[in-house]
Amino acid sequence: MAENAPSGGEFQRARSAEAKQQRESAILDAAVQLGTTQGIRSVTLTDIADAVGLHKSALLRYFETREQIFLRLTAAGWREWGPAVLTALEGARTPAAVARAFAATLAERPLFCDLLAQAPLNLERNVSLESVRAFKLVTLEQVQAIVGALRHALPALSEAQAIDAVAAATALSGAYWQMATPGAAIEELYRADPRLAHAVVDVEPRVERTLTAMFTGWTAGVA
Amino acid sequence: MAENAPSGGEFQRARSAEAKQQRESAILDAAVQLGTTQGIRSVTLTDIADAVGLHKSALLRYFETREQIFLRLTAAGWREWGPAVLTALEGARTPAAVARAFAATLAERPLFCDLLAQAPLNLERNVSLESVRAFKLVTLEQVQAIVGALRHALPALSEAQAIDAVAAATALSGAYWQMATPGAAIEELYRADPRLAHAVVDVEPRVERTLTAMFTGWTAGVA
Repeated sequence: MAENAPSGGEFQRARSAEAKQQRESAILDAAVQLGTTQGIRSVTLTDIADAVGLHKSALLRYFETREQIFLRLTAAGWREWGPAVLTALEGARTPAAVARAFAATLAERPLFCDLLAQAPLNLERNVSLESVRAFKLVTLEQVQAIVGALRHALPALSEAQAIDAVAAATALSGAYWQMATPGAAIEELYRADPRLAHAVVDVEPRVERTLTAMFTGWTAGVA
Repeated sequence: MAENAPSGGEFQRARSAEAKQQRESAILDAAVQLGTTQGIRSVTLTDIADAVGLHKSALLRYFETREQIFLRLTAAGWREWGPAVLTALEGARTPAAVARAFAATLAERPLFCDLLAQAPLNLERNVSLESVRAFKLVTLEQVQAIVGALRHALPALSEAQAIDAVAAATALSGAYWQMATPGAAIEELYRADPRLAHAVVDVEPRVERTLTAMFTGWTAGVA
């Protein structure tokens, strides 16, 4: 047996691991596609299985639950948004510019906003503890990187304030995104009844205004 | 027939209307009880029907869906919290005092915090348009009253800023409450793994710190 060539068994395992990973990626891609189109609340495990041409029971060999699929996408969302907000924060040196960096990068990512609101309410509730742990470690890593960049942009911020800021930016974007996408029938109702104009939420400007005030307060020396 | 006595038919209708209202109240009370004990996400229509001794099909003569019951409770929550925050704002004249009034009155109402997060994600999605309209008109009335009190407390705030503030206070309290109550198994995980300490959310102080910064920024003259 040549030293660097895998044995037949190793080769099989490598092939099989690669096939498993490809299948997992196909499942996650289908969930992204369906979630982006219709909002993740209404995407079922059967919808995802149908989209990748698997039976539901076969899909459950790759993921624990529907919620685990979307929690994996939430982790992927943090890994993708984290570097994007770091880039947006480069050169931002005022409360308004920092607020804009957060609001713009979040509003550009509607599926991530949907997932941010769904994760604590639904996704973390129907998965194993190990899945929650893995998810939380990904968010921790990204939050730490963003907190570093934020304190570089606004040196008056304490670490605790920077953590509160990331929590507020993501929680508000998630909540307002849900309010802003109530479905076609309710959107029509809000537009048809002038008394309900207040119910129409424009996510990005509202998040930007709120975060600008918050960063201004902290840089003005609020303890 | 005496002038001031209802006719037999009117009497029957009055009795029947009263009985209907009593039954509706009993259903809403049972939903409050179950939601407070176990969190509203896991309360089913069957749970509520069992608690009031009705069959599920009989319960559906009083309410459209499970979601309509909880949306009615969310409206009741706004009607109860509104006056409470107005009282708490009396005498509050600094950003910190105003932030404390919001954070304290919201954190004291865990079921309302649960409902605030659930309403846009789930409750407004499975009810008639008329139910959504009725709900939105209740929130509008309460938001207007709170905005008035808020601008009296902090006259530097514009109406738009005061509306943003009520939205932020309720959205953050709802989202953080969900994060703070992940269930016993996950709470244990967060406490057992020191890397996950960041996942433990203390709702009231975090909301208070964030709102203090926000009100400070707005009173410092952020446009």
